Amino acid sequence: MEVPTLYTYYRSSCSWRIRTTLNWKEIGYETIPINLLEDEQKTLEYTSINPFQVVPALKIDGVALTQSIAILEYLEETRPEKPLLPKDPIKRALVRSLVQAIVGDAQPITNLRVIKYVEETRRDEWTNYWATFSFQRIEALLAATAGEYCVGDEVTFADICLIPQAYNAAHRFKVDMSNFPIIQRIYNKCLELNAFKMAHPHRQIDCPDEFKENK
Amino acid sequence: MEVPTLYTYYRSSCSWRIRTTLNWKEIGYETIPINLLEDEQKTLEYTSINPFQVVPALKIDGVALTQSIAILEYLEETRPEKPLLPKDPIKRALVRSLVQAIVGDAQPITNLRVIKYVEETRRDEWTNYWATFSFQRIEALLAATAGEYCVGDEVTFADICLIPQAYNAAHRFKVDMSNFPIIQRIYNKCLELNAFKMAHPHRQIDCPDEFKENK
Repeated sequence: MEVPTLYTYYRSSCSWRIRTTLNWKEIGYETIPINLLEDEQKTLEYTSINPFQVVPALKIDGVALTQSIAILEYLEETRPEKPLLPKDPIKRALVRSLVQAIVGDAQPITNLRVIKYVEETRRDEWTNYWATFSFQRIEALLAATAGEYCVGDEVTFADICLIPQAYNAAHRFKVDMSNFPIIQRIYNKCLELNAFKMAHPHRQIDCPDEFKENK
Repeated sequence: MEVPTLYTYYRSSCSWRIRTTLNWKEIGYETIPINLLEDEQKTLEYTSINPFQVVPALKIDGVALTQSIAILEYLEETRPEKPLLPKDPIKRALVRSLVQAIVGDAQPITNLRVIKYVEETRRDEWTNYWATFSFQRIEALLAATAGEYCVGDEVTFADICLIPQAYNAAHRFKVDMSNFPIIQRIYNKCLELNAFKMAHPHRQIDCPDEFKENK
């Protein structure tokens, strides 16, 4: 079987979700870095793979799939080993609800193309405001669902999506994470796991040398 | 079996997705309107149902579910009659990819709470820019996937999510829809179907009288 190819950018949280999932499910893959700061997502070649001109895209099973959550669901349906969704429909709905709170409500208004469209003088305030806004609400959701991880004691797509968002909040948007003890606890716990560790931006081949970790 | 209760706002595109799906699957439901202009989503009572303080929420099978896409997936898993996802995993991924392009990339940056946070003088420019930005890309995706509807010739979640977005683009964000002939064609076709017609904002009990249609 052909090895999947991931079009990715080391700092992209949507790419990070796919990297963690591929690692978790022990699916080997090749990496093609797309440098968003140099607008490589807008080349004709990449646009033919993903007309939305965003990362990630995943070439797998003879097709190029786009949109990280569609890819996660596809991987779960076609590679059910090491599941990342619970079996019970109500628990699955709780996981997907957290996923959408992160990928639909929290991430889109703080991503690179939106921040570039906000006045330069207001960007720090903007990202801090929205990251804090969504984390207050996600922390409240987690108070009802979390065990060791976001929903109960098993790793799910909710954790896969939470970690990049928490990393960005803490390191890029200067959010005071001490206000979000459940998120912080789950963040620390996940980053002890190999699948999450190896997917971290600082371990990627396109990470600039000054940030790179090779421990 | 208890009748599901939908917490909804007539103009909310996320509520509209659920209304169409419930209609499509012929699931009867009761409506509790939450007036977003009067901040009813922030009451203690509603916050206990949905800590994210957004509509919709759906009380069903003894639980309160939140996030429209999590609810759509739940309804598909527990009420598989009149399916809204194809059987083939790759086609399912195409549907979910379009869904996420709409609900993750297009909708969040033009929703009410974000627009309120953009300077007043810039709001029209902001919503027009982002609605056009995302429709250019969604039109390109549809060029590869559309038949009579978004993906092939069957109604799917992609259509359910596209219609409210197209309505908002045309009627609220002043997007020139003649640039998006595939979106426009699918929009017209869907609004001929009863499930879509009955879910339209102007047919809802909380629609102000001046907009209301009772045809």
